[in-house]
Amino acid sequence: MSKTEQEEGLTFAPRFDENGLIPCIATDAKTGEVLMFAYMNAQSLALTIETGEAHYWSRSRQSLWHKGETSSHVQRVVEMRTDCDQDCLWIVVETNGAASCHTGRKSCFYRKITKGLDGQPVMTFTDAEKIFDPKDVY
Amino acid sequence: MSKTEQEEGLTFAPRFDENGLIPCIATDAKTGEVLMFAYMNAQSLALTIETGEAHYWSRSRQSLWHKGETSSHVQRVVEMRTDCDQDCLWIVVETNGAASCHTGRKSCFYRKITKGLDGQPVMTFTDAEKIFDPKDVY
Repeated sequence: MSKTEQEEGLTFAPRFDENGLIPCIATDAKTGEVLMFAYMNAQSLALTIETGEAHYWSRSRQSLWHKGETSSHVQRVVEMRTDCDQDCLWIVVETNGAASCHTGRKSCFYRKITKGLDGQPVMTFTDAEKIFDPKDVY
Repeated sequence: MSKTEQEEGLTFAPRFDENGLIPCIATDAKTGEVLMFAYMNAQSLALTIETGEAHYWSRSRQSLWHKGETSSHVQRVVEMRTDCDQDCLWIVVETNGAASCHTGRKSCFYRKITKGLDGQPVMTFTDAEKIFDPKDVY
């Protein structure tokens, strides 16, 4: 597929990396915030499209990962997009208020980085609240 | 650093991959939409924090990439976050209406994937409009 077809065409041809994975950004349909970032392989992408529920590939467990299979916090996909060179996916998901982070928080991105007076990075919580206690769920 | 320190601590210790890169999601401060997805290395991350303007690492050019250096479409970072295991960054950026995609579009994610009546993926444009003509800029 030429660069022009990839960027301007309407053939969905996701480019998986050398490990067979494609990065996927999940944002909240209600708030727009980024909930999590994970990877899909061809099988999890096909299952996501087929079922309308986010499936990923767990790199740590090296296995197919139906989000919510353990926690019941399923992500219902309301929109899926790909980027110009088709090597990244963005899904907009409904979670019905459930947590998307394994720490029990709504989003995995619960800490922000600012600068101290010395110019060095300073990390602070933006939302430390846990919707569930991981000990109760996993 | 322990898993607990990584996830619950306030020491910013970004985890670069085997190529020295960390993925970075950039969203629009005004609309919340995902504008682009790229990678940073330690140097581009440090420069981003130092200058407040997004710097990436171009994998295709294998070089430091100050976003907007050619197109003048600089991304001003209003917030930076990291995720639970600190292997991904999310920056919220102001673009003053400029395009973030090299194709001339505001966002790189200008096509969505739906399903045809046969269940197969169908790709359509969500926003084909080009803010600039790449031929005039690059």
